[in-house]
Amino acid sequence: MSAFIHFFRDDYSEGCHPNILRALEETALIQQIGYGRDDYSIEARAAIAKLIPGYDADIHFVSGGTQANLVVIAAALKPYQSVVAAQTGHINGHEAGAIEATGHRVEIVDTTDGKVTVDRLEPLVAQLGNANSTQPKMVYLSNTTELGTVYSKVELTALSAFCRTQGWYLFLDGARLPAALTAAGNDLTLADIGALTDAFSIGGTKNGGLFGEVLVMVHPELRSGFGYHLKQRGALLAKGRVLGLQFRELFRDNLIFELAGHANAQAQIMAQALEKLGYPFLVPPCSNQLFPILPKWVIDKLAEKYLFHVWQPIDREHAAIRLVTSWATTEAVCTQFIRELMSV
Amino acid sequence: MSAFIHFFRDDYSEGCHPNILRALEETALIQQIGYGRDDYSIEARAAIAKLIPGYDADIHFVSGGTQANLVVIAAALKPYQSVVAAQTGHINGHEAGAIEATGHRVEIVDTTDGKVTVDRLEPLVAQLGNANSTQPKMVYLSNTTELGTVYSKVELTALSAFCRTQGWYLFLDGARLPAALTAAGNDLTLADIGALTDAFSIGGTKNGGLFGEVLVMVHPELRSGFGYHLKQRGALLAKGRVLGLQFRELFRDNLIFELAGHANAQAQIMAQALEKLGYPFLVPPCSNQLFPILPKWVIDKLAEKYLFHVWQPIDREHAAIRLVTSWATTEAVCTQFIRELMSV
Amino acid sequence: MSAFIHFFRDDYSEGCHPNILRALEETALIQQIGYGRDDYSIEARAAIAKLIPGYDADIHFVSGGTQANLVVIAAALKPYQSVVAAQTGHINGHEAGAIEATGHRVEIVDTTDGKVTVDRLEPLVAQLGNANSTQPKMVYLSNTTELGTVYSKVELTALSAFCRTQGWYLFLDGARLPAALTAAGNDLTLADIGALTDAFSIGGTKNGGLFGEVLVMVHPELRSGFGYHLKQRGALLAKGRVLGLQFRELFRDNLIFELAGHANAQAQIMAQALEKLGYPFLVPPCSNQLFPILPKWVIDKLAEKYLFHVWQPIDREHAAIRLVTSWATTEAVCTQFIRELMSV
Amino acid sequence: MSAFIHFFRDDYSEGCHPNILRALEETALIQQIGYGRDDYSIEARAAIAKLIPGYDADIHFVSGGTQANLVVIAAALKPYQSVVAAQTGHINGHEAGAIEATGHRVEIVDTTDGKVTVDRLEPLVAQLGNANSTQPKMVYLSNTTELGTVYSKVELTALSAFCRTQGWYLFLDGARLPAALTAAGNDLTLADIGALTDAFSIGGTKNGGLFGEVLVMVHPELRSGFGYHLKQRGALLAKGRVLGLQFRELFRDNLIFELAGHANAQAQIMAQALEKLGYPFLVPPCSNQLFPILPKWVIDKLAEKYLFHVWQPIDREHAAIRLVTSWATTEAVCTQFIRELMSV
Repeated sequence: MSAFIHFFRDDYSEGCHPNILRALEETALIQQIGYGRDDYSIEARAAIAKLIPGYDADIHFVSGGTQANLVVIAAALKPYQSVVAAQTGHINGHEAGAIEATGHRVEIVDTTDGKVTVDRLEPLVAQLGNANSTQPKMVYLSNTTELGTVYSKVELTALSAFCRTQGWYLFLDGARLPAALTAAGNDLTLADIGALTDAFSIGGTKNGGLFGEVLVMVHPELRSGFGYHLKQRGALLAKGRVLGLQFRELFRDNLIFELAGHANAQAQIMAQALEKLGYPFLVPPCSNQLFPILPKWVIDKLAEKYLFHVWQPIDREHAAIRLVTSWATTEAVCTQFIRELMSV
Repeated sequence: MSAFIHFFRDDYSEGCHPNILRALEETALIQQIGYGRDDYSIEARAAIAKLIPGYDADIHFVSGGTQANLVVIAAALKPYQSVVAAQTGHINGHEAGAIEATGHRVEIVDTTDGKVTVDRLEPLVAQLGNANSTQPKMVYLSNTTELGTVYSKVELTALSAFCRTQGWYLFLDGARLPAALTAAGNDLTLADIGALTDAFSIGGTKNGGLFGEVLVMVHPELRSGFGYHLKQRGALLAKGRVLGLQFRELFRDNLIFELAGHANAQAQIMAQALEKLGYPFLVPPCSNQLFPILPKWVIDKLAEKYLFHVWQPIDREHAAIRLVTSWATTEAVCTQFIRELMSV
Repeated sequence: MSAFIHFFRDDYSEGCHPNILRALEETALIQQIGYGRDDYSIEARAAIAKLIPGYDADIHFVSGGTQANLVVIAAALKPYQSVVAAQTGHINGHEAGAIEATGHRVEIVDTTDGKVTVDRLEPLVAQLGNANSTQPKMVYLSNTTELGTVYSKVELTALSAFCRTQGWYLFLDGARLPAALTAAGNDLTLADIGALTDAFSIGGTKNGGLFGEVLVMVHPELRSGFGYHLKQRGALLAKGRVLGLQFRELFRDNLIFELAGHANAQAQIMAQALEKLGYPFLVPPCSNQLFPILPKWVIDKLAEKYLFHVWQPIDREHAAIRLVTSWATTEAVCTQFIRELMSV
Repeated sequence: MSAFIHFFRDDYSEGCHPNILRALEETALIQQIGYGRDDYSIEARAAIAKLIPGYDADIHFVSGGTQANLVVIAAALKPYQSVVAAQTGHINGHEAGAIEATGHRVEIVDTTDGKVTVDRLEPLVAQLGNANSTQPKMVYLSNTTELGTVYSKVELTALSAFCRTQGWYLFLDGARLPAALTAAGNDLTLADIGALTDAFSIGGTKNGGLFGEVLVMVHPELRSGFGYHLKQRGALLAKGRVLGLQFRELFRDNLIFELAGHANAQAQIMAQALEKLGYPFLVPPCSNQLFPILPKWVIDKLAEKYLFHVWQPIDREHAAIRLVTSWATTEAVCTQFIRELMSV
């Protein structure tokens, strides 16, 4: 048994939402066809498609986030083409070279808040036509970003327009997209994401599911033959029903957004308390990830009772930590954390 | 709802065993560390390790069979080395080029019953040292094979000795290993498998789990750095607990073998009835896959009520079909099938 | 110094034709732009393009045959697509897994004379749409084949029509194309090759050059971005002038075909003598490779004085050997060989 | 004919040294075994080995620099391992993603003068053991660097010691190694390079050859099976004699170093004149590449008569250009350039 009061380490520390467990139980003995052609996957796809009206997108389910990213990118690019990501992007440095293992270079742009911006992309246009350089063909974003920030509709529209001008694909990693779409200050909808990107994912793992990510392939070129890519990369589950059933439940009555909204709200409780206590943040908090900057001795004290990441050193005496809430985080746990913080 | 009485199409048409669902429910709100370092994965590894005494093997859990095969093979081989498989081997022609996508050639040997034999391997030794050929370094087996046959201890010992003489790795794909170890005529144990191979898998998907395969890495060279390979190929689940918990349950009190034995027994009921009716088999039935040879008009009749694969044509008027039973197949369903067959 | 009278081992045992050496000398101090944009490459391309009238093909020069094959195939295929070749095809088993190292499976069809035929391709159509199989997208031929045989215009037209019906690319490996186009019984021209294939190579290495192969990319899809592929695979020489100059000389006044015709003629001298002596052939000889079947004791005697490949055993007492002539083989050497053979 | 007085664009604008041409002529009709087992390659290897006494290194010849880099790196690394290079390193951004195409990430360290230093490598040690990161296993240097600078014996010894402590390979790209070893201020010998690195190349293309690079594989782990890698990547020439013969000539009586010394001396003539004229340099000039900073209007004037690269902008009115001399550059051409510069 854990010696910690609570883990604020990530949003995948718990199991899954009871609705999913109930559905697994109810369907356990019903026979279904394999490889994603089961009734539940069909129902889940229909539910998701309804949220992206006007697009004849293909919807697939895969097991995890790195797998989702590597399959989409490897499927989209010719061998000499590259994907562009922010320095902090998950595919850059957090996935053990998974993209490079498929043969593609990740071209990096600087960022201060985890977001990619058009002005950082523009210099890459100079690589086009130079046979000594990779040819950028896709831009990779994550929303929420790895720093918990979110894209505004204006920002995403500008990126989308830039990519379309260049003939580049825009791919949005949505491992925490439900948190983004329910974040403070968000003005994007899932329909907007469908309209502005060429492919995007929606995370189940970090949003109340046992495991699994939705892949929405919008651009016709990215849809063609994508099923073969999934099989070839080992990303096609025999019992696709297990993924389909989870997303059927998560998209029933907007459960997935409700869960994300709950996680965001718990984070906000802690954020407001931290602010009141005068602690600054690495980036302004708006979703379920907080990056408060604390004195190191305070961090050491908290670390005796809570599990969390020390994100980065700030100066000799301070560091930023990461606190993450989930669908299962209770208000009680958050208020207790505040009390513990106040009493160190 | 399905118009068929029953699917004999495969052993992954149902959900999962109730013990797994109960465990998922009981642990849903317990926080655990991610990426396979959770308590349940640790418990599952301990339970499996007990069955392979004397080997300090590393045990990992991955999502599916193609993923298991491609990670093990890609991790084991240098770029110019190849893996040898039977013509019928799952990695040869059933996995969409997944092995080749990691850069490795699959060298093929002929087989009549799905098994690899030493005399078919011997000619490949001539490739060694020839810079124009790939250099074989691993032999891939499956047990049960894709034709439902099983290796005897004598056969596996001979293959193991041959591979060790050559310095080749022996990898056993155990997607249906529980069915093999409980098959009629089997004389191998899991401990034997550990002693005779360098790496092997044990399937959860086809043996009562929701999804997932165990990877047992025995040879020290194959154990080194394997975790990085898993991450890089997108095979490391954030909620590794979901895999660990399933295998903890499946290996508690030998449940996985009990379920496989049940599936085999149901297949035997049908096999004996088919034999009595005078139908021959493509290969002698001993596990949960049957390949009876039937007149095409009988197959057509059965296909109105049952879902199954027509495996291969035999002559103008006959074909072999594949009937697969699972942990969830009931005796009632089997006897009804026999009745339907007798009344066509 | 060699202890052998002569090497009939291959067609790349000598250096290069004097015209190439003279051109290298004359241009040694003339400065040229790198990477294939030099005057000589431009002149060579123009000379080759004239022989394929009506096609706006892109012409590139690379260093060697395996490199030529792997770049074309890797550039043409999506990750899940495969290339089809004859069992005897150079890319199948003679290139150390070079194609697989780029991630692609080579699907094999049987052959008796080294040639691919439409009836052997037809069964592969069944793989299309099956997510468990690779999706064939290219057919690989060599002309002359690895057995020295040549395609007729009827045969190549049928293969071309079949591929176009399927939407597959047809790629012809022409490492010995000059020998094919000057072979006994040949009715194809370089213009036909351009009209009937989507890409093809023309060997310099085996036809009087120091090294180098021409790549003619005909199909617009295969032309797009091909230069980036070349650079990425390490196939773009800084001093592209060295390749361009060689092919400028080889295509001046049809020198390359003259050299190939000479090699074929020398082989025919030996073939006729062998026939007169009553020795059968593995395949009927028509180009610069002969595969006579000789008693093993005769082979052993010849092997004391000549270097050649023992190709394959025929029975306990006979084997087929391979004798290859080149642009530099003299009639004197051939007649001496016949004398030696008659006196063993 | 070129409208320019001279190309200072690179060191591969001319053909090759007359000694090579004479050797090609003398040996044209002598038959040799293929694939690098010819007499000339054996002689060249012996001549090079003599310069690295005490090391039982394997010596191979390949066609070009990108090919040399990609084969060495792909052969050395396991899929999850990465190579570290300076931001300006040739493999980072100048080779069209060639390293990534073999599945490996290039980890980047900052540099001001093109050199890698131990203090920039140290932070990468933190990645070791983190399954989300690639595992660095090789450091890539070039000498001279892409900025024409050279490593001192102290610097290379420190890098070597650091790599050996970490168990990392040290690979030195020597496309311009002859220029480095004859540069002003150099205190390294080829024997030192052999003692301090695990693998290195010596360029022929940029040092008077027609084409080709030497690969010296020192570390036993990098030597094992390397020939298979060469074949698989398309880097093994059938007429290996053409490479062997060139390097036999270039290493006869130290010709390659004499040629590089000549190129360096011509550059120094121009460097001294530029300094006298008061022009600063991007980096202090010591080998055959100069990076003077000139007013843009001067650059424009020079560009009417000379071909060279504008390397990078410095401010609104100035830019650095790159001037490269070669084995074939005459003093007359250099003094004429100075005159032209003085008269703009």
